[in-house]
Amino acid sequence: MIYLDNSATTQPKEEVIQSFQLASSQFFANPSSIHPLGGRVEKLLRTAKQQAAETLGVRSEEIIFTSGGTEGNNTAIKGIALEHGQRGKHIITTEAEHPSIYDTCTSLENLGYRITFLPVDENGLVSVKQVEEAIEPDTILITMMYVNNEIGAIQPIEAIGTMLKKHPKVFFHVDAVQALGKVPLKLTGSGIDLCTFSGHKIHGLKGTGMLFVEKTTTLFPLMHGGNQEYGVRSGTENVAGAVSFVKALRLVMEQYKQNIQHLTHLNEVLRKGLSELKDIVIHSSSNGAPHIINFSVLGVKPEVMIHTLSEKEIYISTKSACSSKELDESRILIACGKSREEAISGLRVSFSYDNTVAEVELFLKELHNAIKQYKEALG
Amino acid sequence: MIYLDNSATTQPKEEVIQSFQLASSQFFANPSSIHPLGGRVEKLLRTAKQQAAETLGVRSEEIIFTSGGTEGNNTAIKGIALEHGQRGKHIITTEAEHPSIYDTCTSLENLGYRITFLPVDENGLVSVKQVEEAIEPDTILITMMYVNNEIGAIQPIEAIGTMLKKHPKVFFHVDAVQALGKVPLKLTGSGIDLCTFSGHKIHGLKGTGMLFVEKTTTLFPLMHGGNQEYGVRSGTENVAGAVSFVKALRLVMEQYKQNIQHLTHLNEVLRKGLSELKDIVIHSSSNGAPHIINFSVLGVKPEVMIHTLSEKEIYISTKSACSSKELDESRILIACGKSREEAISGLRVSFSYDNTVAEVELFLKELHNAIKQYKEALG
Repeated sequence: MIYLDNSATTQPKEEVIQSFQLASSQFFANPSSIHPLGGRVEKLLRTAKQQAAETLGVRSEEIIFTSGGTEGNNTAIKGIALEHGQRGKHIITTEAEHPSIYDTCTSLENLGYRITFLPVDENGLVSVKQVEEAIEPDTILITMMYVNNEIGAIQPIEAIGTMLKKHPKVFFHVDAVQALGKVPLKLTGSGIDLCTFSGHKIHGLKGTGMLFVEKTTTLFPLMHGGNQEYGVRSGTENVAGAVSFVKALRLVMEQYKQNIQHLTHLNEVLRKGLSELKDIVIHSSSNGAPHIINFSVLGVKPEVMIHTLSEKEIYISTKSACSSKELDESRILIACGKSREEAISGLRVSFSYDNTVAEVELFLKELHNAIKQYKEALG
Repeated sequence: MIYLDNSATTQPKEEVIQSFQLASSQFFANPSSIHPLGGRVEKLLRTAKQQAAETLGVRSEEIIFTSGGTEGNNTAIKGIALEHGQRGKHIITTEAEHPSIYDTCTSLENLGYRITFLPVDENGLVSVKQVEEAIEPDTILITMMYVNNEIGAIQPIEAIGTMLKKHPKVFFHVDAVQALGKVPLKLTGSGIDLCTFSGHKIHGLKGTGMLFVEKTTTLFPLMHGGNQEYGVRSGTENVAGAVSFVKALRLVMEQYKQNIQHLTHLNEVLRKGLSELKDIVIHSSSNGAPHIINFSVLGVKPEVMIHTLSEKEIYISTKSACSSKELDESRILIACGKSREEAISGLRVSFSYDNTVAEVELFLKELHNAIKQYKEALG
């Protein structure tokens, strides 16, 4: 099997599953229980949080464990909107967001908020100037992806964060789900107030994630209740999930430099191979994240390519998994100004560090065969 | 070890952990991916949902997998409030709720909603008449626990549901987290529109749960995004979590009758034993759920009892885990009209089916010794 759909989800590492299993069976008490069994679990959870904080260079109390990226994005966006809605009801985002930002922003329109969806250029990018010019007196939040999940575009997050220091009342939320472990990430002092992470995109488990909440940032919690996670995210802590998330986080960050080198190499091999094939248009900029390449095979339906490749046990995707069942064009590619033909035929290859050059070469060979077969059948 | 804090959390069953592990490693793809790996996972998830639906006698499309009880309660309450807030802003609940209902309702007051907190009687109960009389023209939701988490009181859910058929515009949400597997539960045709379940209270895993949403009931989703779970709960599905939840659900429901008999017997042994000890006041009504007995040892600080018993590896709790770190009186016991002395000294024993009569007898013996030691030291 050659699995090249790592932006949809990754295979959990054996060590991650083991840490989940161990915590579930050996540390099962409720960390809020005041007896020593509970205290032991609470300590485990606190240690995991400290490890996550150290790995990301932030404070323990800025780490909120969540059930995943969608919860993180919704907590950040709705949390700021509902908490600071008295001060202003204007939110800025882009036209190229994941549905968990895009649809969350849209949902707030029904509650009286005003959303500016910034257009992106042909590479999926917004400029710092565009963002700054969109700020109005009642703007409370800017929210966007760091790395685009369909095409790998890297937004100028650092520069936007720096610019936003002039606008201290505007919160800045970054969705780093596709960025973690793939591009440089600095949180403390960056101007970022909230940052979303997901476990299952970094060989962790589904149902796990983390939200960075800068220590002076206040939110209306998505979930009220027992005041766990400093009151930001109530509910009995998924201790085993948190521990397994931190395990995955540490594994990916320990190998960060080697991983980037390897992903960059895979990217180059794939780009070169694709450029040698006929009728292929690459949508991802070469300045994008190394693990995602989006392209179209003109004149071939993407479902056909997915199907033919899967018969060889090679797995790639059309657009993002979270939008894949809507059988129309990619909203992201349309936002990048691609033609409808390109936008309905986008294919996404997304790497993990575990993919090999040999796998990429075999993928290229089978892609070539698949295109040839299809054209011959039609010809 | 004698673990008698099962209302805080239960030890996950080995089979449940195994099902999680198997699904995580063997069915890791994203169920939304359109390649066959994704299709296989989507089928697993659908099958799990069908099994849950059959076990509870509801439709598959009425089952929403969640990250737990707090998410379920928040989704139901905020979801109805925000979706139907144009029609009315009045919500009815009781004074004896878990924080994930109580605080969620309170949070809505900040958004312009009006909450009626019904008083409860000395057993923690509201009457159907009380609920009906509280309904106003702008009431949109009635929300309450089925079984109280601190004292085990069983609200007259069935009768309230029947009464509410005369008020079809008022949604009825029931928190069945402490009820599942312990008291009879009928959903279809009951007048219940939303019902919350949690995995880790039934020997499942933390971070798992389920919300029943009757098929004509519409919600403002807590989490917007990729439209998973019929759009009610976006986010990549925690497939392994869902599968493990359904495993736990089936295990507990298959043994329902035997479990109830056993819990009832444990309850009787404990009640009899407690009534033979001096200075003990039992707060839980004998008509309550069989797995929870709340009592005070008058004149002894509850932390001292917890500590002394834990030295014998016996684990019980003060109030609920979700409130246990607030070192004041129990809001629930105060709502039941108990004195402050009683309300600050409440101890909760909560059984699982796996507890034995021998364990209860040993607990009683050690409780007796602990009280005696304490009084002697003071005397």
